[in-house]
Amino acid sequence: MASHKNREIMLVSRPQGMPKETDFKLVESEIPECIEGGVLVRTVYLSVDPYMRGRMSGVKTYIDPFNLNEVIVGGVVGEVVKTRSPELKAGDKVMGTLGWRDYNTADSRELRKIDPGVAPISTALGILGMPGLTAYFGLLDIGRPMPGETLVVSGAAGAVGTGVGQIGKIKGCRVIGIAGSEGKIRYLIDELGFDAAINYRTVPDIKKALKEHCPNGVDIYFDNVGGEISDAVMPLLNFNARIVLCGQISQYNAEKPDMGPRIQPYLLVKSALMKGFIIVNYAGRYEEGIADLGTWVKQKKLKYAENIVEGLENAPKAFIGLFKGENLGKQLVKVSEG
Amino acid sequence: MASHKNREIMLVSRPQGMPKETDFKLVESEIPECIEGGVLVRTVYLSVDPYMRGRMSGVKTYIDPFNLNEVIVGGVVGEVVKTRSPELKAGDKVMGTLGWRDYNTADSRELRKIDPGVAPISTALGILGMPGLTAYFGLLDIGRPMPGETLVVSGAAGAVGTGVGQIGKIKGCRVIGIAGSEGKIRYLIDELGFDAAINYRTVPDIKKALKEHCPNGVDIYFDNVGGEISDAVMPLLNFNARIVLCGQISQYNAEKPDMGPRIQPYLLVKSALMKGFIIVNYAGRYEEGIADLGTWVKQKKLKYAENIVEGLENAPKAFIGLFKGENLGKQLVKVSEG
Repeated sequence: MASHKNREIMLVSRPQGMPKETDFKLVESEIPECIEGGVLVRTVYLSVDPYMRGRMSGVKTYIDPFNLNEVIVGGVVGEVVKTRSPELKAGDKVMGTLGWRDYNTADSRELRKIDPGVAPISTALGILGMPGLTAYFGLLDIGRPMPGETLVVSGAAGAVGTGVGQIGKIKGCRVIGIAGSEGKIRYLIDELGFDAAINYRTVPDIKKALKEHCPNGVDIYFDNVGGEISDAVMPLLNFNARIVLCGQISQYNAEKPDMGPRIQPYLLVKSALMKGFIIVNYAGRYEEGIADLGTWVKQKKLKYAENIVEGLENAPKAFIGLFKGENLGKQLVKVSEG
Repeated sequence: MASHKNREIMLVSRPQGMPKETDFKLVESEIPECIEGGVLVRTVYLSVDPYMRGRMSGVKTYIDPFNLNEVIVGGVVGEVVKTRSPELKAGDKVMGTLGWRDYNTADSRELRKIDPGVAPISTALGILGMPGLTAYFGLLDIGRPMPGETLVVSGAAGAVGTGVGQIGKIKGCRVIGIAGSEGKIRYLIDELGFDAAINYRTVPDIKKALKEHCPNGVDIYFDNVGGEISDAVMPLLNFNARIVLCGQISQYNAEKPDMGPRIQPYLLVKSALMKGFIIVNYAGRYEEGIADLGTWVKQKKLKYAENIVEGLENAPKAFIGLFKGENLGKQLVKVSEG
């Protein structure tokens, strides 16, 4: 083991607006005893995700809030270092929803064993994990892409957006991404095969740019960000358009509800559908999604990017960076060697 | 015939904001010759409907705009007075999309023959016509009501809203209506069997009133009005709630897009669906809807109210009245004796 002490990151105050590093605290504790029927897992990667902002607010939504002065819980990939379970042995790589700690103990039934032969284990938190499944089910089940349709993706360079755009291409769509840096724009077009991408931070008129890149209107809008970017998409919706509400990252740090032009008239005249979802709605179909995503990754039809910050102590900074658009692809924190 | 002259109502200027009577003009013309294969129809009732406001704006939405200095076209029920069609005989009662005129000539294939034995012929413009079908397909196909669920209907005392609430009761829902006068509130509760109804014009706090009447949250919101009434419903949505976007009457006369609190965060955290529709999307299923609606009317499970203004010349006033909440149930204009 790298250390005889355990470290963990707690939430110590509820963020007001943009989270600050002082909302979190690194504390030392003992490495837990391995529970009966369970294993002790050394964290290799932990995942920071925009949805976790909601859990920090102290309001129950679809998931309970984090308690103050308790460890943050999220997606973790790690290695089994002790076992009291017949199902897992030392050295196995596993994925689970665990604490932001060096070491967690967990029931083996709450962990998923990862096959490192398919892809690097970090992908269990990205393209072959929650973000990949979110892209897959949101686009295919709600967006229902048809060949030749136009798909617009906001937050296009993030963990979910990169998956959505590429799956859209696999399904024969014209794909336009919206992202916030020239590097991201180039990556989407040159590496991932998007038909076009718009830098919302520098484009003079996003409505005009969207109209130019979507000459046949918008059939599917996969929305990760909300706010003014979404406002710009509404007038371009086609008849029977589908809007997949996956995230609203532009709103997560709002201290009071944001105002915008009402969208119902746009949806009404186009018989359009807007549907929110959370990935756990599809829990019964994860295997199907992972199988397709894994096949596409092996076929090189589905690429992925990872943005890796080193050190458990830097997890809060990595989390905060999500709201500053710092990550290209999946934002991970590497806690120990895998 | 009541007159040897024909009268018709034209749109002579595009309304700015609330329509005015001077946007319309009554002109005299000749009674048309009956077209070959068609009939000459004497108008008995014509229908004024909120959606027609959109056609007056000169912007193409799902339907072409009305042209200036041409006759207004809408739902008409009338009697065949001359026939050159083997399918219809003089005296037959028919329904069609015709001009706001004393007499129209039309191809018999564009008319639907009405059986006056089922219900008064005026119902072909109301509960057994477009508004009834709108209530039926919007609620059943998008709202998908389940017994025990809570259904909120805005514009509850209108032609569509009265149908929605009663079909909701037939399907076993708790039904709460929102309307704009004490007379309407009493009618919804005492005559139509709504569980509760809220007068949005006089209630001190509509959010609080909704919360009191929806102790288990809102599963279905059938929205005819939009605006601040809809804002008040959003925080009460349950997981997997469905919002049926049928109309946005509060917005139709807006001279610039109205602003409101963004709704996407509410839909997102509840995995809620919002879907716009227009009744012609269901054209292939009208027979099914008319059959069910007719059965319920005969069984007295489905009641209807009509608000009748006399005289073709008063059609503009009746239309304008829709936006002032003057109608209880279906607003009709009686043009001649049926």
